[in-house]
Amino acid sequence: MLKREIEEMGKKAKEAAKVLAVLPSCKKDKALKKMACALREKKDMIMEANDRDMTEGREKGLSEALLDRLLLTAERITEMADGLEALTALPDPVGKVDSLTTRPNGLQVGKMQVPLGVVGMIYEARPNVTVDAAGLCIKTGNAVILRGGSEAINSNLAISKVISHAAEQAGLPEESVQLIETTHRDAVGAMIRLNQYLDVLIPRGGAGLINMVLENASVPVLETGVGNCHVYIDGEAQLKMAVDITVNSKVQRPGVCNAAETLLVHKDMAEEFLPLVGKELLQEGVELRGCEKTRAILPHISKADEEDYETEFLDLILAIRVVNHLGEAIDHIQTYGSGHTEAIVTESYTNSRAFLAGVDAAAVNVNASTRFTDGFQYGLGAEIGISTQKLHARGPMGLEELTSTKFIVYGDGQIRE
Amino acid sequence: MLKREIEEMGKKAKEAAKVLAVLPSCKKDKALKKMACALREKKDMIMEANDRDMTEGREKGLSEALLDRLLLTAERITEMADGLEALTALPDPVGKVDSLTTRPNGLQVGKMQVPLGVVGMIYEARPNVTVDAAGLCIKTGNAVILRGGSEAINSNLAISKVISHAAEQAGLPEESVQLIETTHRDAVGAMIRLNQYLDVLIPRGGAGLINMVLENASVPVLETGVGNCHVYIDGEAQLKMAVDITVNSKVQRPGVCNAAETLLVHKDMAEEFLPLVGKELLQEGVELRGCEKTRAILPHISKADEEDYETEFLDLILAIRVVNHLGEAIDHIQTYGSGHTEAIVTESYTNSRAFLAGVDAAAVNVNASTRFTDGFQYGLGAEIGISTQKLHARGPMGLEELTSTKFIVYGDGQIRE
Repeated sequence: MLKREIEEMGKKAKEAAKVLAVLPSCKKDKALKKMACALREKKDMIMEANDRDMTEGREKGLSEALLDRLLLTAERITEMADGLEALTALPDPVGKVDSLTTRPNGLQVGKMQVPLGVVGMIYEARPNVTVDAAGLCIKTGNAVILRGGSEAINSNLAISKVISHAAEQAGLPEESVQLIETTHRDAVGAMIRLNQYLDVLIPRGGAGLINMVLENASVPVLETGVGNCHVYIDGEAQLKMAVDITVNSKVQRPGVCNAAETLLVHKDMAEEFLPLVGKELLQEGVELRGCEKTRAILPHISKADEEDYETEFLDLILAIRVVNHLGEAIDHIQTYGSGHTEAIVTESYTNSRAFLAGVDAAAVNVNASTRFTDGFQYGLGAEIGISTQKLHARGPMGLEELTSTKFIVYGDGQIRE
Repeated sequence: MLKREIEEMGKKAKEAAKVLAVLPSCKKDKALKKMACALREKKDMIMEANDRDMTEGREKGLSEALLDRLLLTAERITEMADGLEALTALPDPVGKVDSLTTRPNGLQVGKMQVPLGVVGMIYEARPNVTVDAAGLCIKTGNAVILRGGSEAINSNLAISKVISHAAEQAGLPEESVQLIETTHRDAVGAMIRLNQYLDVLIPRGGAGLINMVLENASVPVLETGVGNCHVYIDGEAQLKMAVDITVNSKVQRPGVCNAAETLLVHKDMAEEFLPLVGKELLQEGVELRGCEKTRAILPHISKADEEDYETEFLDLILAIRVVNHLGEAIDHIQTYGSGHTEAIVTESYTNSRAFLAGVDAAAVNVNASTRFTDGFQYGLGAEIGISTQKLHARGPMGLEELTSTKFIVYGDGQIRE
């Protein structure tokens, strides 16, 4: 039964996608503005629904961090509306043809950017994803099927009702944005195998959710997420810059995927650098866990083991390891890293190039905090997630990453010999 | 046991990929040239191995078409070697950074093209894929694990031995090109779930193979293949051009994915066009199956049913349907097409634009044969397959499609506020 309902949603989404694919930008932008207005107007109704989720969440004993992610204030709803309006200022990638090449036989061949079709989003907790995903998909001419977390079901239902209605009022197909209304787990199971109607799945959430989707989906997946990021302080590095970048990468927002989890330090820098950075990190409340060589310099910190190097703490904890040379740092990163963001702090031209070439990750930074891996920081103007896979998109994904291409061929009657 | 062997191959491939990723183009090109030489030198040994496959194939009762695909002649081996040499003349996409954008805080952000890592190829029958895939992967700095069809096992073993040895002689890692030596089916099962080591799977072959991989793989897949392609003759079209394009699309090579399977004709053109094209197609030995309106004009042909519209004949059979207008043609294509190649023949500017915008396929042609959908015809210089999916690559895939990207970020000590 549930499977059939999800299929029905997929079918309707596919129909909506056909219409959305050829809508001019002005109509899509008009819908985004209407959706923003509606969110502002219906703020109280949305907060009431959110109240119910918050109450249930407290009863279920959700952590304070989770409750905070779930909470919708008037300010947060305004931010969501602002986000939709900001999208209208961005260029529409759909229909862009970068170049047409003329072949020897006179055929003109080019690649046109087109919508993906139907996007499936599976996400946890934060109800603002409902608005962000809907906005990004509409801007790029995609229909979207949303499946939010059960903790946020009332908030998500209220939000999706408001924005779907506004989009429809603006002339978009009724099923451009659909939310799966049941919290039954089988809905996800049906969604991830809906190849007939879904063009891509984007799971956003913890490692458990993402791995479950990767393991079981037959629909193509854009993997987002896990970030076990490193800062490596090279043998020649500016001391203050090294301290600032390390501290910023760890503490500016420790609960996110582009925060640093392990600090690698060249042995030539260790004795001067570690006491300085250690002091600042401890002041910020960071728990340090070091290798033997680190503990010879910072004797009061605890011991780092294999598991610490493997862990995305998402918390004020930092593993530290002293390495003998750049190659050892790169090896450590390739062994334990998740291919998200890796930074080197160095004054060596040669080592900066070797690090950029040798580290295989979505973002490789020289002398900059790991915290910059973000669609807005990169100037994409929007972000649907940060891909840690290699196909289609890698790193922060903006509007371009929600499009596919088609070859267009202009002929004058050419046939193949 | 088998699973552990495949894992071991994956592990070695990953190690090889690290080395290949940072090899300069000249070294990769040198290896390709050595591989080409080796193929020429060991021609007789390869043909002997192929003889064994041919004998076994005949004993198993393989069709003539399959036996022809399996056959390796001196000329075909020379062509394979030529193909490897042709790759050396193409630009290496690895390391290319199209642009660096400077952000307001001074950070320079760019996207660098990098190898995918380890590519898994699963293919049937034609042993030349062993050479093509190995060459394309080495050129783009990827390691490759090959799994050919059981019918070609002796040929593939001989070829992979020759080219792997040559690549190693040229200084490439020993495990840059590996062939799975067993024909046991479980090897494929292990390969398609080898996420730890494989970055992408490319299945090439019949619908059975491709669907099995899509259904069961957890490794990301680049789907290639099925082509249920259409030619639509619009209400205003040049008669001779319409006939030429239809005939070429159907008969120039009927057994391939970009050959046309259904002809759609606007009602205004049907009476004049169908007798002309019908005559030529019948002369070429094509069996025609038409709708009621078609049979009113060509009464001697058989009746086309729903199943004919759904079928990729890959043979000298063509379904024909008369439609009332462009919208009906597009609807038919979206209902029955496989999103491969769709062509319109028209003199109408407006209809050419509507067809280009409204048809969702890897290639959409105006006044050109469907047979042009091909990496070489498009000027890509090479082709690893034709993608019919929307993620990562769509249409003919060349060297660029065997790469991923990474963001590179140049800073001067920037931290995030």
